[in-house]
Amino acid sequence: MNKLRVNKGFAMERFSVLCIVILITGCQAAGKCGYESCNPVKDGMINVHLVPHTHDDVGWLKTVDQYYYGDKNHIQNAGVQYILDSVIQQLFADKNKRFIYVEVAFFARWWRQQHDSMRHAVKGLVNQGRLEFILGGWSMDDEATTHYNAIIDEHSLGLEFLRQNFGDCGRPRVAWQIDPFGHSREQASLFAHMGYDGLFFGRVDYQDKFNRAITKSMEMVWQGSPNNLGPSSDLFSGVLYHGYNPPPGFCWDTLCTDDPIMDDEDMEGYNADQKTQDFLNYTKYQSMAYATDHLMMTMGSDFNYQNAHMWFKNMDKLISLVNAQQKKGSKVNLLYSTPSCYLYQLNRANKTWPTKSDDFFPYAHLPHAYWSGFYTSRPTLKGYVRQTNNFLQVCKQLDALAKLEDSDNSTLNIQVLKEAMGVAQHHDAVSGTEKQAVAYDYAMRLSRGNYECQKVVNDAYKKLFPKQKEVPPNQMFCNLLNISMCQATENNKQFTMTVYNPLGRAVSHWVRLPVIGKSYVITDPNGKSVPSQVLPISNVTKNIPERKGSLAENELVFQVALPSLGFSTFFIKMSQQSIKKQRSVVGQIDKADISIKNQHLSLMFDGNTGMLKSMKNLNSGASIPLQQTFQYYIGHPGNSSVKRFQASGAYVFRPLTSASLDFQPTLKKKTLYVQGQLVQEIWQQFSPWVSQVVRLYDQAKYAELEWTVGPIPVNDGKGKEVITKYSTGLQTSGVFYTDANGREILKRVRNHRATWQLKTSEPVAANYYPINSRVYINDNKTQFTVMTDRSQGGSSLQDGNIEVMLHRRLLYDDNLGVGEALNETGADGKGLIARGKHYLFLDTVQNSGALHREMGLRLYMAPSLSFTNSQMKQQEWSQKFYSNWSGLKSPLPDNVHMLTLEQWGGPTIRPSATQPFLVRFEHIYEKGENSALSKPVKFLAKDLFVPFSIKTMEELTLGANLPLADLKRLQWKTKDYTTDSEAVRRRIQAADNFTVILNPMEIRTFQVTLT
Amino acid sequence: MNKLRVNKGFAMERFSVLCIVILITGCQAAGKCGYESCNPVKDGMINVHLVPHTHDDVGWLKTVDQYYYGDKNHIQNAGVQYILDSVIQQLFADKNKRFIYVEVAFFARWWRQQHDSMRHAVKGLVNQGRLEFILGGWSMDDEATTHYNAIIDEHSLGLEFLRQNFGDCGRPRVAWQIDPFGHSREQASLFAHMGYDGLFFGRVDYQDKFNRAITKSMEMVWQGSPNNLGPSSDLFSGVLYHGYNPPPGFCWDTLCTDDPIMDDEDMEGYNADQKTQDFLNYTKYQSMAYATDHLMMTMGSDFNYQNAHMWFKNMDKLISLVNAQQKKGSKVNLLYSTPSCYLYQLNRANKTWPTKSDDFFPYAHLPHAYWSGFYTSRPTLKGYVRQTNNFLQVCKQLDALAKLEDSDNSTLNIQVLKEAMGVAQHHDAVSGTEKQAVAYDYAMRLSRGNYECQKVVNDAYKKLFPKQKEVPPNQMFCNLLNISMCQATENNKQFTMTVYNPLGRAVSHWVRLPVIGKSYVITDPNGKSVPSQVLPISNVTKNIPERKGSLAENELVFQVALPSLGFSTFFIKMSQQSIKKQRSVVGQIDKADISIKNQHLSLMFDGNTGMLKSMKNLNSGASIPLQQTFQYYIGHPGNSSVKRFQASGAYVFRPLTSASLDFQPTLKKKTLYVQGQLVQEIWQQFSPWVSQVVRLYDQAKYAELEWTVGPIPVNDGKGKEVITKYSTGLQTSGVFYTDANGREILKRVRNHRATWQLKTSEPVAANYYPINSRVYINDNKTQFTVMTDRSQGGSSLQDGNIEVMLHRRLLYDDNLGVGEALNETGADGKGLIARGKHYLFLDTVQNSGALHREMGLRLYMAPSLSFTNSQMKQQEWSQKFYSNWSGLKSPLPDNVHMLTLEQWGGPTIRPSATQPFLVRFEHIYEKGENSALSKPVKFLAKDLFVPFSIKTMEELTLGANLPLADLKRLQWKTKDYTTDSEAVRRRIQAADNFTVILNPMEIRTFQVTLT
Repeated sequence: MNKLRVNKGFAMERFSVLCIVILITGCQAAGKCGYESCNPVKDGMINVHLVPHTHDDVGWLKTVDQYYYGDKNHIQNAGVQYILDSVIQQLFADKNKRFIYVEVAFFARWWRQQHDSMRHAVKGLVNQGRLEFILGGWSMDDEATTHYNAIIDEHSLGLEFLRQNFGDCGRPRVAWQIDPFGHSREQASLFAHMGYDGLFFGRVDYQDKFNRAITKSMEMVWQGSPNNLGPSSDLFSGVLYHGYNPPPGFCWDTLCTDDPIMDDEDMEGYNADQKTQDFLNYTKYQSMAYATDHLMMTMGSDFNYQNAHMWFKNMDKLISLVNAQQKKGSKVNLLYSTPSCYLYQLNRANKTWPTKSDDFFPYAHLPHAYWSGFYTSRPTLKGYVRQTNNFLQVCKQLDALAKLEDSDNSTLNIQVLKEAMGVAQHHDAVSGTEKQAVAYDYAMRLSRGNYECQKVVNDAYKKLFPKQKEVPPNQMFCNLLNISMCQATENNKQFTMTVYNPLGRAVSHWVRLPVIGKSYVITDPNGKSVPSQVLPISNVTKNIPERKGSLAENELVFQVALPSLGFSTFFIKMSQQSIKKQRSVVGQIDKADISIKNQHLSLMFDGNTGMLKSMKNLNSGASIPLQQTFQYYIGHPGNSSVKRFQASGAYVFRPLTSASLDFQPTLKKKTLYVQGQLVQEIWQQFSPWVSQVVRLYDQAKYAELEWTVGPIPVNDGKGKEVITKYSTGLQTSGVFYTDANGREILKRVRNHRATWQLKTSEPVAANYYPINSRVYINDNKTQFTVMTDRSQGGSSLQDGNIEVMLHRRLLYDDNLGVGEALNETGADGKGLIARGKHYLFLDTVQNSGALHREMGLRLYMAPSLSFTNSQMKQQEWSQKFYSNWSGLKSPLPDNVHMLTLEQWGGPTIRPSATQPFLVRFEHIYEKGENSALSKPVKFLAKDLFVPFSIKTMEELTLGANLPLADLKRLQWKTKDYTTDSEAVRRRIQAADNFTVILNPMEIRTFQVTLT
Repeated sequence: MNKLRVNKGFAMERFSVLCIVILITGCQAAGKCGYESCNPVKDGMINVHLVPHTHDDVGWLKTVDQYYYGDKNHIQNAGVQYILDSVIQQLFADKNKRFIYVEVAFFARWWRQQHDSMRHAVKGLVNQGRLEFILGGWSMDDEATTHYNAIIDEHSLGLEFLRQNFGDCGRPRVAWQIDPFGHSREQASLFAHMGYDGLFFGRVDYQDKFNRAITKSMEMVWQGSPNNLGPSSDLFSGVLYHGYNPPPGFCWDTLCTDDPIMDDEDMEGYNADQKTQDFLNYTKYQSMAYATDHLMMTMGSDFNYQNAHMWFKNMDKLISLVNAQQKKGSKVNLLYSTPSCYLYQLNRANKTWPTKSDDFFPYAHLPHAYWSGFYTSRPTLKGYVRQTNNFLQVCKQLDALAKLEDSDNSTLNIQVLKEAMGVAQHHDAVSGTEKQAVAYDYAMRLSRGNYECQKVVNDAYKKLFPKQKEVPPNQMFCNLLNISMCQATENNKQFTMTVYNPLGRAVSHWVRLPVIGKSYVITDPNGKSVPSQVLPISNVTKNIPERKGSLAENELVFQVALPSLGFSTFFIKMSQQSIKKQRSVVGQIDKADISIKNQHLSLMFDGNTGMLKSMKNLNSGASIPLQQTFQYYIGHPGNSSVKRFQASGAYVFRPLTSASLDFQPTLKKKTLYVQGQLVQEIWQQFSPWVSQVVRLYDQAKYAELEWTVGPIPVNDGKGKEVITKYSTGLQTSGVFYTDANGREILKRVRNHRATWQLKTSEPVAANYYPINSRVYINDNKTQFTVMTDRSQGGSSLQDGNIEVMLHRRLLYDDNLGVGEALNETGADGKGLIARGKHYLFLDTVQNSGALHREMGLRLYMAPSLSFTNSQMKQQEWSQKFYSNWSGLKSPLPDNVHMLTLEQWGGPTIRPSATQPFLVRFEHIYEKGENSALSKPVKFLAKDLFVPFSIKTMEELTLGANLPLADLKRLQWKTKDYTTDSEAVRRRIQAADNFTVILNPMEIRTFQVTLT
């Protein structure tokens, strides 16, 4: 670190002349930002807003740090440090120039390396609107495979960085999702609540885009929550004309090969007149697709502006040449602009805009190129991201509840995981569309972040546990429980387990611990014995290569009861004598049908095939035939041998034929059953590389299906995309439902788009939609719901069916840039094994809402386990430590979720006296989902928490970067109404009123200070 | 042009902030430049001089203008405008940074586009030595295929640009030939006389380099003219360690893919410690090859620094990191430096340096890669460049003699040709190693320049011709006389021909004009009839596709007598009646040997084969058997199918076998003779695509051999390299002689290098040397001399033989960057036909010097023809116009050549009152070449010229950018002596002394003013 400081000092001296510039520029900092700082337009002309921009992927072909530095340029010539260095010098030199910067993950890296004088000068640029932050998330998140909790967190992370360093002039006015592969309505809704005035994006289905272009409806008011939040979720949204690229022939980056403007008549190659004419022609074409006299042209592309001067020098000439034509009667006016300045002019135009209330999935850019493969690509990374979000919430909550301080380093530690998660939401991260080496980097960052947060949890427990001054033993964490592997439980005959419940209500939770023994005694925090069952670990699990070294032979299964927002400690000890009640009976299915059932459900399996046959809800009596098969599509290898266009790949799902292929139809000899006191299981082996365990826990209202897929064999030269298909026989008329980012549900209709007449020759891929957490079908009476533990793609290709894609292994690059086939391998070099869970519900439509809403929460906010090898008994432990502790004085209402609880103020600022906290409360139901729970709800927040009371409470925008009272969004006219710029603000409560009212699907964000 | 001004104004406004910087920097302009401005070194340490530089080819894969703009970046990512823009901003920002710029062809283009404020600021940088011009020629000329006249001109052109715009701080101290493919001793000599203190280059034979590295003799005093000019031609010269590239792993250009310095410990990929260690290791290795504690590292390469910031940011870090090691005892010190600052430290080191007195040809970088192919590559371009140099001299002389003024636009017009010639001397221009499209661009520039100079010649004639006020008719020029095509002579039955003689003595000259008629009457300026002969145009010529449209059937041949530095006008009219004396007799050789002879020579041809058999000097009686064959080598296709390494190509000559292959041995049926009063010819057809005309003109002391080669057939899939081989039977003991750049003669010994033991497995290519104008062999008594009309490669592979390569057509790229096979085609798309001339002398060794020296001059300073279609008879014309005019009052001594006569002061400055002229006089003999003519010579210059007298006369350096009195070169110790920094200066004459003394091979440069 010393070294770095030496560097900076050295740089300071050498940049003495530069510093003079900076100071001069800095002195002008008292300018205006926002819409007032825009360059003037010429009314009565077509104003072409040239928007200099760079699109900097937070990892893709290279890792985020390689991109930052410009390392590994043989893979891709891209170095963000140079982009920022370079652009800022250009902005210093000319007050008319504009630049937008988007990805805070990169900007923060750069900023941390800058000297104060440079920071000061850059603030000057921001204060004058010359450098403008757009979007301002930590990354430009994917919209199909991300969870809303992570989306909100990563935007808050970026926006808070900007707020702390730049104040209000650093607050982005416009959202900028120019590259993600389709667009989610939920994202639009979240953006509206973050206070953005508009959204622009580059990728829209080619049929949709054509239709919009010829009807001048490229720009619209997008209704983000038409059924729930209404106008407050309206977001003005625009489709860019040429992706996020410049007009063809006008790319002047070091990465481009377009001819520069050659305007010296004394030299060869003079092209200034031709370029002028070409640009005017292009302007004419573009203007035909848009409704106003304003056009936006994105002058940049991926990692452009490493040598910003090239771009600006030629744009200077272009502006000069084209505007000079005005003297000859031209009505085209060029200016340096930004998306917000463009948006502001659209707003000024006072037009009536079309509306849209569905989403923009799936995205296809060509007839055979539906980007619905990435909904499932890299299922293990997707699972890891979801799981890590869970732990980040735990970490932030415990940090807040324990009121950890600077001396604990917790802020910095949490920041590591926040940033890793921020990076992982990028549209080439959790999406699975990065190179393999980059996927490893994302996972490593998450792993490191987890490790840092484990320290925080440990530190929090050290404050929360002790009744006196006794220091509790260190907590150990088990990261590999999904493959039944855990050092802490395998290597100790006696250990404690502390389970933290991050939900605002008490929950009971099934725990499965890998153990070596056959019998265990479990004591709960109050000294009571906990019933348990011991099951053998299956051969499928034992054969997972990553599990090498594990000693565990069995799993110890039991249910724990946990307090709201609190923890309980359990005491587990191997027993010398066999405990009969714990035993499991394992047998093979033999001809006769077999069923497993508990108090609520029964599942029937065919005795000959071992396959699921029917499902019955024992309460309602609803029963359906239910077949579940595992099948696969063969990934299309591409028609052309050169470019393999269009192969199925990381992005694109293109099955070779529309029919998915079955495995061996009979599982008979390979199907086992496991019976015991607490859980009934059916172990199915569909093929040597596809297996499943179906579980019914005691009292559970769901059936748990743990699928294990891989290594997918490819020695036949064929890539495969594995699905599971549920066939229910329900009459569904082509309709099915999927969630958007884990929140609102969208109705899907097979072979149908809401706003245009779909024509497709990809009947499978064109009907795939992202499933973030659930997909269901119903016949208006009975609903069959599948919940997932991660984002997956899926559809209902026949009435009554649901299919979900679980895993993909492909042999050809889909030629969209990644340059690698999606061919993941595991520790043994063979195809990667993926494992995950589906949870099935069968109930009435009326009951189903509460089931999946509650389950949704419990899946992504699951309890967090940690262990000690303490030999203390419950009694001894309980004398020294709290073993059953809740952070809430009373649980939250059943329809309310505390989405966020964290100390707030960024990584470096935490004045210990008045440290604010950030709290978000969320109504988790949509209107009409449940007769009781879908109603508005009211509760008092002031004395909610045990460790502290709330002193002040100020409502913020969803992104937590602006008091809601200060928000004023632009208004837009539509055919039916004018959007309500006050809608979000209107609900603000006085700061001394601690009553929180939540309407269905509402999220409210508060900054609170404590007494 | 208006458009351009608008641009500049616009830029001015927008760069307002920048201008402040510039002014601040500009204010510091009163600094020091030259050696005093160098960054400090640390004595006692290894000082590593980091030399940031860009190597900007003045055309290669793209044309010079494409390179300037950055056009056609798909071919090569290179835009010099951005390099200069970018570097200069970096220099503004940090006073420690240094940059050198080399190629004035580019810098001038940039400079012309800059606003005054930028120019002012850049002057500030130059005045402080932060931006330093190195070399400063218009281009970095090739050394093997260039003529000294053109070398001097192109350097003068660049240096004058720098002098006018930057004064003494713009004067380069160091010559920088980092890329040319071998190095000429004559070039070193010229550089010494231009006043350079040192020379660095990057390409030296790999065996030579290895030998130098292990003996620490990479740097030396190169004796440029050991036999003639002595110490005044000594030049300190250094071989760079890694070409002109940075150390491997330390290239930080946008074109490189080395990892940047990653010094943020909080990010992935930290490599600062490793990079530091790698650099220190490299320094250790490099230091083993050099004699002092100073090392130069060239931090840059081809077209580097388009984004200068990338380079400098990483170098800043490197300097900081490596120098920080000094605290831990490291003795390595890094600094930003320049070649001159490095040279200055070498000089300070006060070492004794080795010497070298031969040259650095041929260059091989690997055992099978001898770069001796380019000596001949693109023979037609090489011929055109030589011919154009001739016309540029004519143009400049006539401009001076006529004292054309600004209003004539002559300066600007001449500048076009000067710049075209400057560009054409580049080491990928006349060398023939550029892409085909770029070769066309060079030719087009020469052609345009010729056209502009034709205007100047016309303007000059309009001033010089009239006796009264009569305006003379426009002169027309014939550019295609080499293929017997001329609009002016073909289309007119009567016309005038004016012939200008650019030499300082009267000459007689043979003229051949394509005509339609069979008889012509020719009248000389004095009204006397001129004898002539009419010959049919051969079928070979008629079939040249470029000749399409020509009506000429015959050639009219006659000799003209011309005054010194003057012109004569001749009057030519078709005659209705046949003139017997003009007739030529054409016949076929039939069995009997046939000879052609004149007063001095006789050549015998074999009656059976038609081939040359012997040559005899009728004066001395010397006679030799003389066989001449045309043969070819098959170009090696390369051993590897992927990279074709190492194929014979544009650079490399690598014959498939060492034996050259013969054509059909008998020419009998195809050999014709032409007899007449003035010229005897033998027309030989060696193959369908190789023919030759052997001529003996009346009174000529040489035999003229006009060869025509092409289209070289390649439909057998084999590239061919065509040579002509002269076999004399002389006992030559492996020795032969070639000229260097048309001046001093170097002795060559087969399979031998002067300074190391040659080992080679390329016995042909390794013995090839550049022939600029002559090659000869002798047995100490009889000398056989071949003179060429352009640069060619050649050798003497067997005693008594001389072979010269005439033309090459190859099918594989030689993998050295050009990316194309050297496969030239003509107007019909077939292989290009090349035509040229050899001139043979046979005489005693004593007599031969005068023959080839005189002939050398006459070939490259040939008379220039122009025509009018005037119907005036001689008498009428002579009443109105001077028809016989000399610019000299008396001819120059026989051993003196007026190398330069031109108006001087650059393209824009010509104060008409005191317009200086530039005059160079040259002693054209080496010591000992001729008993009389090799002596020093003295003459009075004052009243030399007819149109004006000299008022003042100040001697300048050879490059004409410094009064010789002001020159002080660095002194160097060698084993035998200390170089004489005063050597050049010592000969200065007082300005009022107009006596010019010339020692053998001396060139003296004077700026003169006129009375």
